[in-house]
Amino acid sequence: MPPQDVAPQVDVSALTTMLDGKYADLRQLVRKNLVEHADILVDAEELSIADFRKRVLDVVVMMAATGQTGMGFPKEYGGGGDIGASIAAFETLGFGDLSVLVKVGVQFGLFGGAILQLGTKPHHDAYLADLITGNLLGCFAMTETGHGSNVQALGTTATYDPETAEFVISTPDDSSRKDYIGNAANHARLAVVFAQLLIGDESQGVHAFVVPIRSDKGKAMPGVRIEDCGRKIGLNGVDNGRLWFDEVRVPRTALLNEYADVSEDGEYTSPIDNADRRFFTMLGTLVQGRVCIGGAGVNASKVAIAIAVKYGLIRRQFGSPGSGREELLLDYGMHQRRLFPLLARTYALHFAQERLSADLHEVFSHGAADHDRRALESRAAGTKALGTWHASNTIQVCREACGGAGYLSVNRFDALRADTDVFTTFEGDNTVLLQLVAKGLLTDYRDEFSDLDQIGMVRFVASAAVETVVEKTNMRALLERFRDVVPGGDDGEDQDAGLLDPEYQLSMLRWREDHMLAGVARRLKSGMDRGGGPADVFSNCQDHVIGSAWAHVERLVLEAFVEKIAAMPEGPNRDALNLLCDLYALSAIENDRAWFLEHGRLSNARAKSVTAMVNDLCTKVRPICAELVDAFDVPAEMLRAEIIAPTS
Amino acid sequence: MPPQDVAPQVDVSALTTMLDGKYADLRQLVRKNLVEHADILVDAEELSIADFRKRVLDVVVMMAATGQTGMGFPKEYGGGGDIGASIAAFETLGFGDLSVLVKVGVQFGLFGGAILQLGTKPHHDAYLADLITGNLLGCFAMTETGHGSNVQALGTTATYDPETAEFVISTPDDSSRKDYIGNAANHARLAVVFAQLLIGDESQGVHAFVVPIRSDKGKAMPGVRIEDCGRKIGLNGVDNGRLWFDEVRVPRTALLNEYADVSEDGEYTSPIDNADRRFFTMLGTLVQGRVCIGGAGVNASKVAIAIAVKYGLIRRQFGSPGSGREELLLDYGMHQRRLFPLLARTYALHFAQERLSADLHEVFSHGAADHDRRALESRAAGTKALGTWHASNTIQVCREACGGAGYLSVNRFDALRADTDVFTTFEGDNTVLLQLVAKGLLTDYRDEFSDLDQIGMVRFVASAAVETVVEKTNMRALLERFRDVVPGGDDGEDQDAGLLDPEYQLSMLRWREDHMLAGVARRLKSGMDRGGGPADVFSNCQDHVIGSAWAHVERLVLEAFVEKIAAMPEGPNRDALNLLCDLYALSAIENDRAWFLEHGRLSNARAKSVTAMVNDLCTKVRPICAELVDAFDVPAEMLRAEIIAPTS
Repeated sequence: MPPQDVAPQVDVSALTTMLDGKYADLRQLVRKNLVEHADILVDAEELSIADFRKRVLDVVVMMAATGQTGMGFPKEYGGGGDIGASIAAFETLGFGDLSVLVKVGVQFGLFGGAILQLGTKPHHDAYLADLITGNLLGCFAMTETGHGSNVQALGTTATYDPETAEFVISTPDDSSRKDYIGNAANHARLAVVFAQLLIGDESQGVHAFVVPIRSDKGKAMPGVRIEDCGRKIGLNGVDNGRLWFDEVRVPRTALLNEYADVSEDGEYTSPIDNADRRFFTMLGTLVQGRVCIGGAGVNASKVAIAIAVKYGLIRRQFGSPGSGREELLLDYGMHQRRLFPLLARTYALHFAQERLSADLHEVFSHGAADHDRRALESRAAGTKALGTWHASNTIQVCREACGGAGYLSVNRFDALRADTDVFTTFEGDNTVLLQLVAKGLLTDYRDEFSDLDQIGMVRFVASAAVETVVEKTNMRALLERFRDVVPGGDDGEDQDAGLLDPEYQLSMLRWREDHMLAGVARRLKSGMDRGGGPADVFSNCQDHVIGSAWAHVERLVLEAFVEKIAAMPEGPNRDALNLLCDLYALSAIENDRAWFLEHGRLSNARAKSVTAMVNDLCTKVRPICAELVDAFDVPAEMLRAEIIAPTS
Repeated sequence: MPPQDVAPQVDVSALTTMLDGKYADLRQLVRKNLVEHADILVDAEELSIADFRKRVLDVVVMMAATGQTGMGFPKEYGGGGDIGASIAAFETLGFGDLSVLVKVGVQFGLFGGAILQLGTKPHHDAYLADLITGNLLGCFAMTETGHGSNVQALGTTATYDPETAEFVISTPDDSSRKDYIGNAANHARLAVVFAQLLIGDESQGVHAFVVPIRSDKGKAMPGVRIEDCGRKIGLNGVDNGRLWFDEVRVPRTALLNEYADVSEDGEYTSPIDNADRRFFTMLGTLVQGRVCIGGAGVNASKVAIAIAVKYGLIRRQFGSPGSGREELLLDYGMHQRRLFPLLARTYALHFAQERLSADLHEVFSHGAADHDRRALESRAAGTKALGTWHASNTIQVCREACGGAGYLSVNRFDALRADTDVFTTFEGDNTVLLQLVAKGLLTDYRDEFSDLDQIGMVRFVASAAVETVVEKTNMRALLERFRDVVPGGDDGEDQDAGLLDPEYQLSMLRWREDHMLAGVARRLKSGMDRGGGPADVFSNCQDHVIGSAWAHVERLVLEAFVEKIAAMPEGPNRDALNLLCDLYALSAIENDRAWFLEHGRLSNARAKSVTAMVNDLCTKVRPICAELVDAFDVPAEMLRAEIIAPTS
């Protein structure tokens, strides 16, 4: 596709409809609910923490009454029976106050999700109807002070007492106190507590138990100690707390027993024999939380970029002497450079997120093979990491792009940056998540070997050997010329050729991913061959591991974007998305061009062409940037920002 | 210098003494004052904005009574008569609550500095003694809503009325209201107002006037409208406000007349004929503010990195299965990678800042030639940009490195990141400052031409020509081999050779700077040759311009660090600083290795060696990292963080 020289005439409302997708009506309901409670954005600044927590709870309960927050639960308990819808509703909350969003996530996603996924019919009958309305509030007590990402190492114990047929829940030390638990400090009556299940002298690993922590009157239950985590960087409408259990007894039926059970006389049974596999299966059912947070990050990014773009189209500064008028910020190439690649990446992540939600809906609505579940979990982990890092980065860049005005709370960046900051480290620390992604990919390699897929194996080993040679010689560029069979190879006169071909872009991202993964596999193998333990060997190439996972997810994101566009009818909206897709792909390549250069996959001249093309694409986005942010349809009340209402 | 294989035994107190430098006693006084008022860190979270503003003012006035804040004023008015001391005192405030720091900066640096530098003896006699004690509070009313970095385009007017020998101060429109003015919303009685001086029909450009804005009782003066900017991302102990002037009359003597005056009958005189030069001379006298903010950023970074390093030495996570104990965070290579290059850069920027303060002290205490003043202003602008970006980045990385715990306000990152965030865009937006730096460097090029320094000119043109050739051919790597005469060239077997030689490191940073600047000069020249206006041409290569300035400042920082170490006696502290200096230099090169690769200055293999060496240096810093952060001597009360007091 040749670069367009005339800006496409974007049809904003058609683009919004496309972005909103299958659940457009539900997303409009959430927008309406957000606007109705818009003054919570001011309350977040003005109320005391105690009052703001109450206010957020009120809004959550009011939203629950509209059906918006219960979409993922079975209809027989008052839910909507549609998992995809629950994600769409949650994502859309990302336009508004994020304490509300996180409170919804805690109550309906984490607490409700654990009851639904890990519990069985008696638990569903006992709790679901009330928790869907917000009558019964709960929390999800997994994380401990000393055990965050390493859930298998939790210290809390649940010891089965066959005398009374009860579990005894205990906190052995302060590093095993439950920490940062949303809803715990004030509102939750129940906790789903993750603890090491002990029967006799034997540990059966981590399981989940329903434990009452607070009476109807709000008083802590006997044996339960609750502490408030206090003020946080953001999300101060969510009451995070700490929990200690001092021999708290709960009945045998408190075990959420979908994946394992204990009989009255203390016999442990599970449909899944392998303890590790059981643990990861249980955790895997909770994947929806990650999917939701990633989507929220993408939507929070839309708010930030909409404000910064609109400001850049109003505010003038400097300019040609004698012209009598200063230049619009967005007429500076550098300003376009700051914002437009982020805008493009926001679109790309939106479509990657849409694809992920569809996969989740499919797997959880109709069941799936292990391999598909594993693929879903990997995609969810990776998309969450990239989506939330993107949010942090975008919000910060947009705040700086609005200068001093961006520093005023009224202009939204205050709450956006404070509230989203923890997204990168909660629901799975991003760096840990990318390691999970990489482990999954390496397992695929191992499968390839063990399945004796000769061609795949030979290809793998051969290319590894070639690369070793290539990296050892200065003939790299020469070899590259022969190997480079994709359109727009690095040699020849026209350094731009093929840069805008999605096949070329995809081939670059695929090559990087394959090459990085093969490199990690080699390093792991040679580390093991030298007698290192698997954990040490893995830890020694952690940055390489994380790089591979990043490369993998960026490739998935590009594929999702390219596929989406391929399915669109010809027209200006497709042209506009093509521009953004090119900008996403080429700026991803540009950002990692050191790696492509080091590995002989870009020549120096070609690397410079990539940079020049990114600049060129930015100038092409310039005439349609207002339409592209309007298409997000962030309600004006959620943008709030004073600065985008022009003065005098 | 060969890599050390045994960790140096750092003498912490000697290292602190060295870091504290010439003003060690004063820095200790400030530490003592900070500890005395340590509960302000809690007040910042708990008090209402109105109460916190009062509290901050009280602390500032109490500190003023210890002499700490008046060091830069002449002794005859109660000051300390030592400019270097005033910077040292201010920087050290960076360990504590930053509203206090900024309030000090506004009152004594901006307001007091303007009276001192732009005013003459009558102004000094009238105001200095009272402003030094904090009895007379003032503000610095330069920035306008629509005119931030572009001060020459300010809209506020000061029209001379020869009838009454008064200036009439007016705000023509809302985009010319004074905005974000610290001390304006509540406390300032006087404002130094920057306005276009109009005499008859003629504009004389921007000048500064002392304008009473508030009575002793705190009421706005007639014709002055004051509005509160409201809540901000951080620094909520500083009362930022907006000012409008409706024909406010001030006497002729209200003009701060060091650089220009108006006689009673309206005759304008100035010792500086050229209006541009006059304007930049006036602004130049205010350079101390930038120097101070850069230093504050570096010290705020020290607080963040001290907490993150201490946490990483306590907190364990994951680890080898069966080892029975999880690993310390800082025993993960990736965690070292996140923190140690930032630790090294913090040290590097500390010494660059020390050098800058010494230059400032020299220029302002003993006068200097224009060229030296210009060099100082450029160094100040560049160091401020790099120091404050470093603070934002370091604080964010450190917060993420502390996971969920880092998100709790009690652990300090909340205030650190919120308060420092605006450092990158106030006292000169960083991107604008780097453009100033680049303009200065290009002027040096022009000087070279106009001075007919034949050798320099030939060298410049020749090298430009060579580079053009080099970039057009695939023989780049070959040529590089011949041209590379510094130790550790890119060819040969040992890819590590010379990486740790400071001469090699400096040559890399110098080469980048020269090459980039020459490139900018070429682009400017060819743009002008094609008939473009200077402003457009400059704007078109803005990213290139900013890149050159960045390269220039990173080189200055490395030089300052290398010089400092060269003057040290042999010993373990010198060895430790050498490690940090290598780490700073090589991670700077690594961060920009795409550029070095694209320009044939690093081979692929050599680039990978740089990365490997950075990893290696990180493992060498690991055994001494606690000592290296202890040497900053951040008072324990300022670290505050609960997380670094181990639980159970």
